[in-house]
Amino acid sequence: MAEPLNIALAGLGTVGTGVIRLIETNAELIARRAGRPIRISTVSARDRSKDRGVNLSQYAWEDDLTQMAARDDVEVVVELVGGSDGPALTLARNSIAHGKALVTANKAMIAHHGLELAEAAERAGSALKFEAAVAGGIPVIKGLSEGAAANAFERVYGILNGTCNYILSTMEDSGADFADVLADAQRLGYAEADPTFDIEGIDAAHKLAILAAIAFGARLDFDAVEVTGISRIIASDIAQARALGYVIRLIGMAEIETAAGESSLFQRVQPHLVPTGHPLAHVDGPTNAIVAEGNFMGRLLFQGAGAGDGPTASAVVADIIDIARGEKGAAFSMPVGELETVPQAETGHRLGRAYIRFTVPDRPGVLAEITAAMRDAGVSIESLIQRGRAEEGGDVILAMVTHEGPESAVNDALRQLDGSQSLSAAPLVMYIIGE
Amino acid sequence: MAEPLNIALAGLGTVGTGVIRLIETNAELIARRAGRPIRISTVSARDRSKDRGVNLSQYAWEDDLTQMAARDDVEVVVELVGGSDGPALTLARNSIAHGKALVTANKAMIAHHGLELAEAAERAGSALKFEAAVAGGIPVIKGLSEGAAANAFERVYGILNGTCNYILSTMEDSGADFADVLADAQRLGYAEADPTFDIEGIDAAHKLAILAAIAFGARLDFDAVEVTGISRIIASDIAQARALGYVIRLIGMAEIETAAGESSLFQRVQPHLVPTGHPLAHVDGPTNAIVAEGNFMGRLLFQGAGAGDGPTASAVVADIIDIARGEKGAAFSMPVGELETVPQAETGHRLGRAYIRFTVPDRPGVLAEITAAMRDAGVSIESLIQRGRAEEGGDVILAMVTHEGPESAVNDALRQLDGSQSLSAAPLVMYIIGE
Repeated sequence: MAEPLNIALAGLGTVGTGVIRLIETNAELIARRAGRPIRISTVSARDRSKDRGVNLSQYAWEDDLTQMAARDDVEVVVELVGGSDGPALTLARNSIAHGKALVTANKAMIAHHGLELAEAAERAGSALKFEAAVAGGIPVIKGLSEGAAANAFERVYGILNGTCNYILSTMEDSGADFADVLADAQRLGYAEADPTFDIEGIDAAHKLAILAAIAFGARLDFDAVEVTGISRIIASDIAQARALGYVIRLIGMAEIETAAGESSLFQRVQPHLVPTGHPLAHVDGPTNAIVAEGNFMGRLLFQGAGAGDGPTASAVVADIIDIARGEKGAAFSMPVGELETVPQAETGHRLGRAYIRFTVPDRPGVLAEITAAMRDAGVSIESLIQRGRAEEGGDVILAMVTHEGPESAVNDALRQLDGSQSLSAAPLVMYIIGE
Repeated sequence: MAEPLNIALAGLGTVGTGVIRLIETNAELIARRAGRPIRISTVSARDRSKDRGVNLSQYAWEDDLTQMAARDDVEVVVELVGGSDGPALTLARNSIAHGKALVTANKAMIAHHGLELAEAAERAGSALKFEAAVAGGIPVIKGLSEGAAANAFERVYGILNGTCNYILSTMEDSGADFADVLADAQRLGYAEADPTFDIEGIDAAHKLAILAAIAFGARLDFDAVEVTGISRIIASDIAQARALGYVIRLIGMAEIETAAGESSLFQRVQPHLVPTGHPLAHVDGPTNAIVAEGNFMGRLLFQGAGAGDGPTASAVVADIIDIARGEKGAAFSMPVGELETVPQAETGHRLGRAYIRFTVPDRPGVLAEITAAMRDAGVSIESLIQRGRAEEGGDVILAMVTHEGPESAVNDALRQLDGSQSLSAAPLVMYIIGE
């Protein structure tokens, strides 16, 4: 058997220790598959003395993680520190500059600096791999950039954040409201102490921007992702959606639009209504799932554990095995120079069916004002549900589903209603995914 | 951009013409992703004059397909002729002997001769790739052998035959019986004129044996796959299963069993009852889906189009792109010499819950005899449904579900009942998949 592949591990949180456990547990199998053993030579983290449940004594320790890149006994640097900038980025740049391969699970860093790092890796003849950055243990980056590489993609969308999916499917099962389920999720470790990145959709947007670049051969453009999180969803929304035959899921969606010969890239993270017959409607708990539609393969679904130490370690080590096999690949499925600059799509002309939820005072005339605004904007209402009485202030919930029409019409109607005495709170709009 | 990769295409049926259409349609995109254009240099089929809806005039024609392997202008031979032996196998052997890479969609050939061909490819320093042989457009071979390569697999199972799944899910929707749905499927092109390989489970067994070798690092052993098809399933089975909260799916399942330090390989294709909450229960029509359970990644699901010209061409061209990228891989995820000979598992001790359907005369004493046989064999009955009256002979259907117990007990009970006047036909046993 060939010489071991020496790796350095920066960051020993749950994923880092998961990688150590995986490499130790499956060592023999990995060597058979990779053609050579994978050997951890050096580790680094903030606190050397902390008990992490793994024995670190056999590995060299580096106090300054950014120095790992310079070590002669390291061929692959595994960055599991996190953060889009700071030490993680410094380590990544140093590693590539020293000709090391870089494996990372850092979606924020790749979403913000992925193109720069990929170009540097190309110049250095090195590898940049980040399977673990998107959808945990699901090999969707490999699936799109290699397995489905023969296809022009029409659309890529899916459930990219396990915390949000856990919260939404738990709200569904329990009937509880967002804040209560979030608090439970935090207690159970499914949500972080500061859950903003997850519940406001930023984390899903990082992942979506990475997938979109790979699928559409477009330069990664995180700032062009429209993002709405799940924090405004209430128990009534879930109930109304169910009554209409839908579940609510936070969906990241990317699509190439072509009009008058010009292409533009649509990227959006937003809660959607998903019909119960759709494969994504059955994705519950912290699971992730991605649908890719290609012009020859049709619809492909990848589903699995979107987070957690084991699944994430599985993706990290898969990248290392690729490198051990000499399969470096291009970080974004093609060289950075081949990626096209695709402008952000305008969304007003997009056709969709919208779910709109209003919180309104329970008095005559409210419904007339809202429906008049819809009529004036050219929004055609398919169904309307008025249910129950909110606990405070005598407000009621009014939910409607529109016929298919341009998003701009819905926006116009809501603009017309903005500031009206007929609305007790800002309306919530969610679009509906087709079968 | 680098020189084109020259390929030869043997076999111009629906998949072969699909490959031509794909390579022509997505040429520019493929070149960007592969780093070089993919160029069809030569084609071959039985009948040169047949109109296939694609223009072949720009490609060289070879009358004797086995000669393609010797051409200097060919780097990759794509075998789409079919058949486990004969011209396909001759072409495959010749191609590898001439140092060409071989890409094939031929599951029968790989199931029977895969190890020989993989060893020859290793000796020749060439590539053998067969993504299209399993589950059409789903990149499951890449998913298991690369994407999930860090894991020891606990179990791999799934829906591997689109014809059977179309028939079963149509029986479910329509309430029709097997023969009628099969006839419709043949009319619609979802089933072949001679459907034996599909409906008797042979095709799924080919695919399962390939996946098992890859997942478990075991020498491929097609003859060790236990196979039962779907031709004995009747409308009553579907109805009883539904009443109990299940759907029926033809499942291929492979698992490593370890007892007293000895490993054995369980491989079975058999109709199963799948609980409606399980992801495979929502796989309808000609779709395929594979679940892989790994010791770190947990449960992973791949789902997509299991057949058809577009999806299969997508998988064939993905293999060609890998080769263009210089990523040859090992055919079975590790060199053939690393694959272990794993004996076939005994199945008697396997624990499972069984659905057993009896066709019995409608007279006193029948139920007593059957339940006595169950008791004597130690089979504990969880539920029992007797429904309706069969059309002829006054027979009735008696379906039961057992508590979990060893398969040998069920076999013993049925052996005791063999030849009894209380049975009008041989019973049908299907096992139940857990959530």
